[in-house]
Amino acid sequence: DEYRIAVIPGDGIGKEVMPEGLRALEAAAKKHRVKLRFDHFDFASYDYYEKHGQMMPDDWKNLIGGHDAIFFGAVGWPQKIPDHISLWGSLIKFRREFDQYVNLRPVRLMPGVPSPLAGRKPGDIDFWVVRENTEGEYSSVGGRMFPDTDREFVTQQTVMTRTGVDRILKFAFDLAQSRPKRHLTSATKSNGISITMPYWDERVEAMAKAYPDVTWDKYHIDILTAHFVLHPDWFDVVVGSNLFGDILSDLGPACTGTIGIAPSGNINPDGDFPSVFEPVHGSAPDIAGQGIANPIGMIWSGAMMLEHLGEKTAADSIVKAIERTLAEGTLRTRDLGGQADTTACGKAVAEMVE
Amino acid sequence: DEYRIAVIPGDGIGKEVMPEGLRALEAAAKKHRVKLRFDHFDFASYDYYEKHGQMMPDDWKNLIGGHDAIFFGAVGWPQKIPDHISLWGSLIKFRREFDQYVNLRPVRLMPGVPSPLAGRKPGDIDFWVVRENTEGEYSSVGGRMFPDTDREFVTQQTVMTRTGVDRILKFAFDLAQSRPKRHLTSATKSNGISITMPYWDERVEAMAKAYPDVTWDKYHIDILTAHFVLHPDWFDVVVGSNLFGDILSDLGPACTGTIGIAPSGNINPDGDFPSVFEPVHGSAPDIAGQGIANPIGMIWSGAMMLEHLGEKTAADSIVKAIERTLAEGTLRTRDLGGQADTTACGKAVAEMVE
Ligand SMILES: CC(C)[C@H](C(=O)O)[C@@H](O)C(=O)O
Ligand SMILES: CC(C)[C@H](C(=O)O)[C@@H](O)C(=O)O
Repeated sequence: DEYRIAVIPGDGIGKEVMPEGLRALEAAAKKHRVKLRFDHFDFASYDYYEKHGQMMPDDWKNLIGGHDAIFFGAVGWPQKIPDHISLWGSLIKFRREFDQYVNLRPVRLMPGVPSPLAGRKPGDIDFWVVRENTEGEYSSVGGRMFPDTDREFVTQQTVMTRTGVDRILKFAFDLAQSRPKRHLTSATKSNGISITMPYWDERVEAMAKAYPDVTWDKYHIDILTAHFVLHPDWFDVVVGSNLFGDILSDLGPACTGTIGIAPSGNINPDGDFPSVFEPVHGSAPDIAGQGIANPIGMIWSGAMMLEHLGEKTAADSIVKAIERTLAEGTLRTRDLGGQADTTACGKAVAEMVE
Repeated sequence: DEYRIAVIPGDGIGKEVMPEGLRALEAAAKKHRVKLRFDHFDFASYDYYEKHGQMMPDDWKNLIGGHDAIFFGAVGWPQKIPDHISLWGSLIKFRREFDQYVNLRPVRLMPGVPSPLAGRKPGDIDFWVVRENTEGEYSSVGGRMFPDTDREFVTQQTVMTRTGVDRILKFAFDLAQSRPKRHLTSATKSNGISITMPYWDERVEAMAKAYPDVTWDKYHIDILTAHFVLHPDWFDVVVGSNLFGDILSDLGPACTGTIGIAPSGNINPDGDFPSVFEPVHGSAPDIAGQGIANPIGMIWSGAMMLEHLGEKTAADSIVKAIERTLAEGTLRTRDLGGQADTTACGKAVAEMVE
């Protein structure tokens, strides 16, 4: 049977990389006899907001909630609309209302992509960042008091629930258990953030008891970012709160050369709602419209989506095609020292898939 | 006249690097005819806690509040006492009760210290991280509800006041204005942390109006950590909240080779209370007692202290001695590929000062 995919390009370079993501998916689907049906949606974009005064239609959940997955470009155009309005009106809604409590991002040094870290080769860096994706520091509780006076202040609560913390830790420990190294690293800051973070540590310790075959350690987020740069080979599965996971999953890909090729999944592991697959990079209005955006992050996100749908062979064929494309200098986009534009790079990957 | 310095070695390698910090200060004081008086205190340590059941005596503010500055090693011994208890009972008390609202840390690639970043030379990386040091994410408001049930949750409020935000921004813009590049970068996360961070952005924009000769930009913390690795040459003065400044001031020094040599000042610019100068590294119980700790972070913190006291010539003589020591392979400690132990490295610096 057929997988129904909701396709949402969004803003800026999201619109430019999406066709390449679809091209690779179509090539892999054809080759491996996977049936994909794409339904296209124009909301979750500034264009839609300009026309309708909101980021998405009121019935957005009905429109895309029944799909098997959502393939998403990038949203945001800060010169026209503040990011916290565009994002909380789209991406963060998906994550929260579809209960996509896992944000999963690989950090992998690929052949042909030079690392900014001295002396690191492909294979040296290969781990996953598992990020809590629904609560924590991204909270809707807070406000402002005494506006426009010297006494003005704002507050925003970090909220961690036992449900929210335990389920992301379980996912991360399960993932660690499935890998050869069986190692988990927890990001904390319990020395400074003295209420929520000690709670996080407490739950990690409790969860670890159920995984005697997984070794684990924890680092405060400050020194952990330092270790990403100094010892990226230490890591296997790194789990963090919404904010810490966000930081580590940009820093990690930067250590492997660029965030332009990094994919991500916003995953609802229980399957009650569709998951969203999107590149880690944003809408990058500064380079939009020039046809120079790197499509690999989008394409790789498509591979993650296929794997999530259970089509591992098709997914692997895309990842292999990405590796071969990146290894050939001329097929890379300019941000990676190549000469290809977005389309040429995307076509190269699709051809390698075939 | 004489400067009265409160000396607090603390825990672990704090006790080992402190004598070297004092040695360099004494050498610089002698050479430049600066009078320093050192008063030694054993609190803010696990030893003190073990004896007295608290990290510091009740009258700690009287004991050290009248000093001209506090020279501090490192505190924390997580195997014996949770970090949030030892830290909130000492270092974080200093910062908050002495209103040390600026945490100032240089990020500078020094001659002789290899950077983990490919192709970066001394001079390429040279900026300051200015961190808000009294409020923000390090807050005492929050708690736990429904303990030991499935409904259990914890909250902790981030609190940003107009007073707190504006004064750190003013300090950072003033610093940027005094530097040749006159550039300021603000760390934000207003796309995700949708109440406090947009407020931070708003105050940055307001403050920038008073500094038309300073150029400024802002990045979300996730991509900013990526830029630290990919483009450390972009930065001049980077200002962030308590948590973001904490992260950036570990990541920055890591990009310049090691946090072992990084110094910091917890500064009360108004002079109502003493400022605290301490190395960025912690108490490192794992390597304590072996005499191998790198004393440069402590010594450099002494130089920052002298500069804060107005003794710039004496301060510079220590920084120069550090540079010359680091440039000589054999005088470095083992973490930097040298052969010296803590004392030998410290003596080398002191001799170069003379
Ligand atoms: C020890 C810890 C509480 C402290 C902090 O987070 O402020 C440290 O990391 C620092 O940067 O001085
Ligand atoms: C755009 C922004 C709200 C988002 C986040 O912080 O979660 C992005 O940085 C990401 O990592 O997906």
